[in-house]
Amino acid sequence: MTSSNQGEADIADVLRKSIGSPGVLTDGDVHARSCDPLRSVPVPARVIARPANTEEVAEVFRLCTQRNQTVVVHGGRTGVSGGAYCRDTDIIVSLERMTGIEDICTVGQTAVVQAGVTIEALQAAAREKGLFYPIDLGSKGSATVGGTIATNAGGNRVIRWGMTRQNVLGLEAVLPDGTVVSSMNRLLKNNTGYDLKHLFIGSEGTLGVVTRAVVKLVPMPTSQSVAFVAVSNYERVTELLARARQLPTLSAFEVMWSDFYTLIASHVSEPPIAPGQPFYILVEALGYNKDIDEAMFVAFLEAALESGLIVDAVLATSDRQREDLWRIREGSEVIVREMSPFLSFDVSIEIPRVDAYLAEVRASLLGRFPQARTVTFGHLGDNNIHIGVTIGRETLACGNEIEKIVYDALPSYGGAITAEHGIGQFKREFLAQQKSPAEMDLMRRLRDVLDPSRLLNRDVLC
Amino acid sequence: MTSSNQGEADIADVLRKSIGSPGVLTDGDVHARSCDPLRSVPVPARVIARPANTEEVAEVFRLCTQRNQTVVVHGGRTGVSGGAYCRDTDIIVSLERMTGIEDICTVGQTAVVQAGVTIEALQAAAREKGLFYPIDLGSKGSATVGGTIATNAGGNRVIRWGMTRQNVLGLEAVLPDGTVVSSMNRLLKNNTGYDLKHLFIGSEGTLGVVTRAVVKLVPMPTSQSVAFVAVSNYERVTELLARARQLPTLSAFEVMWSDFYTLIASHVSEPPIAPGQPFYILVEALGYNKDIDEAMFVAFLEAALESGLIVDAVLATSDRQREDLWRIREGSEVIVREMSPFLSFDVSIEIPRVDAYLAEVRASLLGRFPQARTVTFGHLGDNNIHIGVTIGRETLACGNEIEKIVYDALPSYGGAITAEHGIGQFKREFLAQQKSPAEMDLMRRLRDVLDPSRLLNRDVLC
Repeated sequence: MTSSNQGEADIADVLRKSIGSPGVLTDGDVHARSCDPLRSVPVPARVIARPANTEEVAEVFRLCTQRNQTVVVHGGRTGVSGGAYCRDTDIIVSLERMTGIEDICTVGQTAVVQAGVTIEALQAAAREKGLFYPIDLGSKGSATVGGTIATNAGGNRVIRWGMTRQNVLGLEAVLPDGTVVSSMNRLLKNNTGYDLKHLFIGSEGTLGVVTRAVVKLVPMPTSQSVAFVAVSNYERVTELLARARQLPTLSAFEVMWSDFYTLIASHVSEPPIAPGQPFYILVEALGYNKDIDEAMFVAFLEAALESGLIVDAVLATSDRQREDLWRIREGSEVIVREMSPFLSFDVSIEIPRVDAYLAEVRASLLGRFPQARTVTFGHLGDNNIHIGVTIGRETLACGNEIEKIVYDALPSYGGAITAEHGIGQFKREFLAQQKSPAEMDLMRRLRDVLDPSRLLNRDVLC
Repeated sequence: MTSSNQGEADIADVLRKSIGSPGVLTDGDVHARSCDPLRSVPVPARVIARPANTEEVAEVFRLCTQRNQTVVVHGGRTGVSGGAYCRDTDIIVSLERMTGIEDICTVGQTAVVQAGVTIEALQAAAREKGLFYPIDLGSKGSATVGGTIATNAGGNRVIRWGMTRQNVLGLEAVLPDGTVVSSMNRLLKNNTGYDLKHLFIGSEGTLGVVTRAVVKLVPMPTSQSVAFVAVSNYERVTELLARARQLPTLSAFEVMWSDFYTLIASHVSEPPIAPGQPFYILVEALGYNKDIDEAMFVAFLEAALESGLIVDAVLATSDRQREDLWRIREGSEVIVREMSPFLSFDVSIEIPRVDAYLAEVRASLLGRFPQARTVTFGHLGDNNIHIGVTIGRETLACGNEIEKIVYDALPSYGGAITAEHGIGQFKREFLAQQKSPAEMDLMRRLRDVLDPSRLLNRDVLC
């Protein structure tokens, strides 16, 4: 169905004529890029179009529609679900030249940006005005505003400020046929007709490509409290979470299961707390009044200790200690070194049932693969658990079998196969077991309205 | 296009056969109800169907689709935009028998309810478990969960917890053709396919009727601080707002312009602060640690006084005083008594430009109607301003002219004709001036997908 018979030079030439030579990459400049952030998967497409503004995106899409040319959109290519993977018959539209920060309003606490701006660049620009964009991801140096909107990215501070969806006020999108839908709302409250932005947020680029956005900012926090605590059973973890939710400054509640902490602690010179407990938790609060915030945080910890909810606690007293505690929670270097090859999962489960779900999955994995090892950690208040699984050298070869063990247990625990990473190409075969036929049908009908020929990111999602 | 030629008895009989006699009202039982919460507008439809569960809603919709019968859905009928108005050829589907509170999970802090539950009933059930549903409206005794989802209702605590949209995790909707789409997600993070709930939230019942929902709850606040302050100019108001946003406990920032406060204060035996300043603000904080919350709130007030941001301040020291201050802000009794007949507006404007917009509108109103009087107040942090306008006896007769003055000034201030009340039937003629042709087209295409014959709430929105 694609126009590959018309030849590479042809589409590249047409694009050069339309958006200028600097806007078009071919050959080695294309293949030198990777579709995957974790390993090298050269981009097989023959052309990358790099429009400089919304009108050029629209022009590229109109040309593609005329030629029945399939398109894959690239933001920062930091997604881990295969959303940036493509075929050799696709062309890539990359928003890397659309990096304008058009406005930051300190009174309204909003920013207007082009979609190719990285999260880090947006945060830096906001910081200069005493403001903060609270979507905070490990990949923020490369992840773009547009990409994080398309995938509804989450990160570490969702428990306080929500996912990307909750932080977008307005956006502009180009539909597959080249129509520009501009809904650059700057208002927190606006019930004037359907709120069209929600159609595009989290649609993984299947309904249109986001070219500009208005996002909400918050005042830049001036106080940070971080504690690391050990807890002896799961009921106490959930009770501690309920109490932590009474801290209006709560900004992270990151639970590490013993499989995770035992591994990381063995690679840290001085672990904050000795391993041996089933649960370790990093609790963080961000606020604006150092003395009062710290008093509130300490009162929370003391009450938890007194009532026996936590076995041990370490309160960071310097920026260095706060960073060290966060580094333990991130732990990715150790995991990559000690677990590779491994599979990484991003599931959601109802909070009361997380531990039971994990027990079932671990038992199933060990039943099938006695050598299986896991690391488990997550943003428990958001229902979101990350699981790393390795069975040794055969891990990737047995990947599908491992996926089935992890995913098949989810429905009976009210779980979802992806909390924040999205379906992309990698989880597509599991989507139908998560959605009812009526939901699948409605998703397809929406996609058919906007992209009847399936030209845009055709291999992802439904 | 409706089936009125088939006669009232016919559709009523068919419905009785389908959902039983108690589910069907006719004649006087129908006309005794009002379409409007503020004045008596008897429901002209001949039948009200009151399904008891989702399957019965679906059955009613299937019957209506077969007969090409138009339907208007009734929740609590507290909307003020005409969404519950209907024609004599319509039938009403009321969700008043669907009042089940199916589950409240204290660990996950979620509630599962049928759509006909009132906000007050939901809040009462949550309170029994130490939890709070933070959508807080004057009409909460009648407004239903389903109706507030359909209209994306706001209220007084949006600055802290967001609009209804931000508090809905999952929902079940019946499409106009009777298909049940159940997306009863209980997870905060779930990027498994399109988040279909957002299609229905705020769609004013045009894409489907919400029959059940999962909502987020928060811990029930245990501390409340309320202050009433006077401010001498608008720049200081916005500066005070920026500082108030650094209170993580901030739950309301309600600005009253002098036209509002002067009127209300003249009807209160002891106004908290003498009239004469251009701005009065009710600031509220809700938290979970009485001593610390109060200390933080007082520190905020003292700093504002010291730096000259506020001219005067009253801090409530008892529940009675807190209620009295809120009663001033609500002021509706006085407004109804002293201003009637009046028109009430619910606009949004970019925060830095609110006062300039209001100055222009007041000047235009006085230019055209020298006797015009206004009252102005609103949730400034949410961009949302309510304006009451009277020109005396001729107010309703000149309603359209007054509306044009208020609405026509909005676009140049980045404003919206409805912040939280919705378009309904009353603002429909102004929608197109707020939306681009591409947005209007996309809205209509979405509606066409789900309701090609326009059977559902046909006279509202696009």
